Amino acid sequence: MNTFGHRFRITTFGESHGVAIGGVIDGCPSQIKLDFDFVNEELSRRKTAQSDSASQRKEPDHIEWLSGLLDGVTLGTPLAFMVRNEDSRPDDYEDLKEVFRPSHADFTYEQKYGIRDWRGGGRASARTTLPLVVAGAIAKQILKEKNIKISSRLVYLGDVVEARKKGDTVGGILEGRISGVPAGLGEPMFGKFSSELAHAMFAIPAVKGFEIGDGFALASMRGSEANDVFVEEDGIITTETNHSGGIQGGITNGSDVVFGVAFKPLPSIAVPQRTVNRVGEPCEITIKGRHDICALPRAAVLVEAMAALVTVDFCL
Amino acid sequence: MNTFGHRFRITTFGESHGVAIGGVIDGCPSQIKLDFDFVNEELSRRKTAQSDSASQRKEPDHIEWLSGLLDGVTLGTPLAFMVRNEDSRPDDYEDLKEVFRPSHADFTYEQKYGIRDWRGGGRASARTTLPLVVAGAIAKQILKEKNIKISSRLVYLGDVVEARKKGDTVGGILEGRISGVPAGLGEPMFGKFSSELAHAMFAIPAVKGFEIGDGFALASMRGSEANDVFVEEDGIITTETNHSGGIQGGITNGSDVVFGVAFKPLPSIAVPQRTVNRVGEPCEITIKGRHDICALPRAAVLVEAMAALVTVDFCL
Amino acid sequence: MNTFGHRFRITTFGESHGVAIGGVIDGCPSQIKLDFDFVNEELSRRKTAQSDSASQRKEPDHIEWLSGLLDGVTLGTPLAFMVRNEDSRPDDYEDLKEVFRPSHADFTYEQKYGIRDWRGGGRASARTTLPLVVAGAIAKQILKEKNIKISSRLVYLGDVVEARKKGDTVGGILEGRISGVPAGLGEPMFGKFSSELAHAMFAIPAVKGFEIGDGFALASMRGSEANDVFVEEDGIITTETNHSGGIQGGITNGSDVVFGVAFKPLPSIAVPQRTVNRVGEPCEITIKGRHDICALPRAAVLVEAMAALVTVDFCL
Amino acid sequence: MNTFGHRFRITTFGESHGVAIGGVIDGCPSQIKLDFDFVNEELSRRKTAQSDSASQRKEPDHIEWLSGLLDGVTLGTPLAFMVRNEDSRPDDYEDLKEVFRPSHADFTYEQKYGIRDWRGGGRASARTTLPLVVAGAIAKQILKEKNIKISSRLVYLGDVVEARKKGDTVGGILEGRISGVPAGLGEPMFGKFSSELAHAMFAIPAVKGFEIGDGFALASMRGSEANDVFVEEDGIITTETNHSGGIQGGITNGSDVVFGVAFKPLPSIAVPQRTVNRVGEPCEITIKGRHDICALPRAAVLVEAMAALVTVDFCL
Repeated sequence: MNTFGHRFRITTFGESHGVAIGGVIDGCPSQIKLDFDFVNEELSRRKTAQSDSASQRKEPDHIEWLSGLLDGVTLGTPLAFMVRNEDSRPDDYEDLKEVFRPSHADFTYEQKYGIRDWRGGGRASARTTLPLVVAGAIAKQILKEKNIKISSRLVYLGDVVEARKKGDTVGGILEGRISGVPAGLGEPMFGKFSSELAHAMFAIPAVKGFEIGDGFALASMRGSEANDVFVEEDGIITTETNHSGGIQGGITNGSDVVFGVAFKPLPSIAVPQRTVNRVGEPCEITIKGRHDICALPRAAVLVEAMAALVTVDFCL
Repeated sequence: MNTFGHRFRITTFGESHGVAIGGVIDGCPSQIKLDFDFVNEELSRRKTAQSDSASQRKEPDHIEWLSGLLDGVTLGTPLAFMVRNEDSRPDDYEDLKEVFRPSHADFTYEQKYGIRDWRGGGRASARTTLPLVVAGAIAKQILKEKNIKISSRLVYLGDVVEARKKGDTVGGILEGRISGVPAGLGEPMFGKFSSELAHAMFAIPAVKGFEIGDGFALASMRGSEANDVFVEEDGIITTETNHSGGIQGGITNGSDVVFGVAFKPLPSIAVPQRTVNRVGEPCEITIKGRHDICALPRAAVLVEAMAALVTVDFCL
Repeated sequence: MNTFGHRFRITTFGESHGVAIGGVIDGCPSQIKLDFDFVNEELSRRKTAQSDSASQRKEPDHIEWLSGLLDGVTLGTPLAFMVRNEDSRPDDYEDLKEVFRPSHADFTYEQKYGIRDWRGGGRASARTTLPLVVAGAIAKQILKEKNIKISSRLVYLGDVVEARKKGDTVGGILEGRISGVPAGLGEPMFGKFSSELAHAMFAIPAVKGFEIGDGFALASMRGSEANDVFVEEDGIITTETNHSGGIQGGITNGSDVVFGVAFKPLPSIAVPQRTVNRVGEPCEITIKGRHDICALPRAAVLVEAMAALVTVDFCL
Repeated sequence: MNTFGHRFRITTFGESHGVAIGGVIDGCPSQIKLDFDFVNEELSRRKTAQSDSASQRKEPDHIEWLSGLLDGVTLGTPLAFMVRNEDSRPDDYEDLKEVFRPSHADFTYEQKYGIRDWRGGGRASARTTLPLVVAGAIAKQILKEKNIKISSRLVYLGDVVEARKKGDTVGGILEGRISGVPAGLGEPMFGKFSSELAHAMFAIPAVKGFEIGDGFALASMRGSEANDVFVEEDGIITTETNHSGGIQGGITNGSDVVFGVAFKPLPSIAVPQRTVNRVGEPCEITIKGRHDICALPRAAVLVEAMAALVTVDFCL
């Protein structure tokens, strides 16, 4: 299932070192003049080599728009786009062909498909999230006109400097926020705003935890502490506190939707590790090549993109 | 969207104090002799009044099977069932008709639908999870024949005794475990095992956090600590540790799938709270009637049921 | 797949001689005061024994509403309902247990499921369309407020009198019409109004053909004859003729949607037929019991119901 | 909704004179060595200018494969492909910008989206079916290994010669056939093999009718004539006749699935026609440029492709 969304739907394709990666957006409203500059800005936020903790791959990431537009305006038909993989160096990965990297998807993909694209992680590479950032940027543009804003901030990051010295990696936690979201979004039972948001966040590689509002901290609170008291302000019913993270019974209450996303340390470390090869024989591996020390802050734009996709899907 | 699942699908219906609650299971394999005793045992695990922390409602919870069976054997056609709501005392709720209980779904339902069933929480009541337990029991029976077992344990519970004294409520954390799950379940990108599991858990009322494996704790670990080294054991490739919780790249690796679910304290507390009524005027509310002090341990069977539904959906 | 629709969704359950048949409607708008009398009138249109060509089963067809209503007004939550099967005489079918009736679904169900409910056709019985009539009646009520009207008329019927004499059955053709439908409904490519309507009509037992507008007759027309010339009338763009049946490029053009539905003669005939039993041995069968001579006119309300379900799904 | 299928899913994109048209196939099994020659052969069957009745556009139709392959073998990940639109002459269409061509989708698209790509029909052009032929060719390859074969034949065609003289167009009827299909495919109620097939055929431009087996002719037959008697042949239960077209109760019975598809005459005729412009003023139009006289025989490969997509979807 490489399609996400119900009304605003993105289907993605591509492997890290294949011909191209891209996507098809179905359900985008017609008559929107796309802000291509904004899409490119968002893309540059996820580009490698931008921060100290990021890896070295330098791709121009030029988006080619294939359909759905007339003079830059959406037709209501599918918006297809792609980015060619130009800076691919599959040789870096040649010696990983027969070995399962610990905590990577090499083993599970091979179990599932009986074959895997061993070049840079193939479909499991973080590069395959690029189309999500493109779709997320369009979603943000639509939401902006409805005065809905998506943002994120880093709330925890391991010690990058120390980890780099040792060829190691670190994890971290991002907080996402959806401001200006109207009350009443989300479906009871299985289409809860929280359920869809959780689903969306686990589409991001390296995500291992998700919480709404005070989340896990609520487990050690009392009801009298955790409840959000309703008050009236300027004719609008709102809550005095926001422990619930803007969602009650799975439906938005008009307060900011606030959520936390936990990232594990990236599994590509430059220190030798024990593992097995494809026939189960023990061996040692030292992962070379270009790798991030941390999924964050690069993942910030991705967290926002997925939140935008969920929100626009409920709004349309 | 009151339907969950892709191949093994459960559609639920019912309000807490309506005529009946129930469900329709579509996609259940044919020729299974249903273990009705087991279904009833699972139901009794969620029944109120069973534990110190649970509320007083005493429903017989008699399941009437409506379709899909011939002499107790599944036909492959939809399995419909219902439980009548016999012990309903809507009078308990009469004075809540015009008031929004803090951190309940009263306000959000009214925002969404412009109408709400104020009798005991209506569709947002925990009672509406009963059909999930029924479906989960059938899913468990199917999984059992595949040697897949679902279990759970309480890993954190607030101080129930102290909270009861004060008319307050507490939260807690449950750990779920899926043992015997084969490697290769889950879809890359948006149909990850972890995504579907997260989605499923947020269908449970009062859930505010979800994590896979070491989850949020992974955020403060290094890659060298967090990686699960592959080893070969008795001809099978497995991992030495299970920080990943049995899932890599969104796909099961054959280890136990382990996950944590955080519950907020239940919002129905017996102490006076400030709130507003339907027209936004401030007022005070003291919730009477029968209420749990904690969603746990009653939610344990529900966590297992949702995990079973996700697993069986990937297995079929 | 026992669910139909995308936004207004009906899930049905039940076998002809099981405990009950019924359905769950998900996505019905809130705050609608259901017209129960109209639902019952529609049901009576499909009831057996109403016409000369219909069979003898006399069921009260009393609908019990299980959920989704408060004082007869929809809550926006699932509307579940059921009708008990009271007048079941499974003994009529005992001798059909081991035999495959020609052109019935006995053989195909057994191939698919390895088991079948042999009592009166089980899930394949025309009785299982009852929930569609209920859902269709609600859809009609919603459409009526939008000034959309669904109707049907008989355009061809075989000679019932002659067929009855011989214990034989006849087929026929119904024409359906959706009036007042706005222009612009339907999706290009795979969600065409025509595609969804065709899909819906083949859900009706005994349907073997479907056409839009002039349909098969268009195959022998010239473009210059078949084209519908656009004209302007009272400020509205419309067409002078309606060979297209109100649909162009899969999307409604504002003219009446007109379509034809062909029914085969019902396969239950009272004359001896050759067939085989479950182990493939040749045998002879004479079908007794209560059977219609023709699916029409009873199917008229069903054709309308399915058309209403498709239309309301596009309108919401 | 530009996605077709449940397990083997094709999402298409592109307008007739946009940058490219193409598709993403999701759910294709892994480890299949794609027969690219066969895909190209199928494509050439639909290419323009191949027959007397076809139009003049000469596109090389070179498929570029973008993802999902490693050395020509499927990875199980999405197969994306595209064909650039090289021979586009939008000037041919400049004077159609403000006018609604009779029985084309110009008017309905504009009603739906408020904007339309007027260059060659945009998304409504027959050119947008190219990706279906590609996906259908892959589906056929998969089915071939299961000994399932899809074919078609022309059963009726209007007089092309006479129509060409007059600048007019003709319609026709194609018969499709799925041979070797196992018994038991199809779901009762709404996922019937016949329902899905009907749905699929109406995705083809100019299709206005669909029938299974003897279809509309069954309406004037008696049950005793129409019933397919079961017989045993070489240990297999089969039917003596095939009036049902291989489907009973919506499920395949193992006989060939046979169906008819009616095409209207193409609406682009070279004779002057009355119509209105975008503001409703009457005007006259004479359609120039390259146009087919008949959708057939070019549509044959498309009918087969859609049948293959439906069949493979049920088989996987």
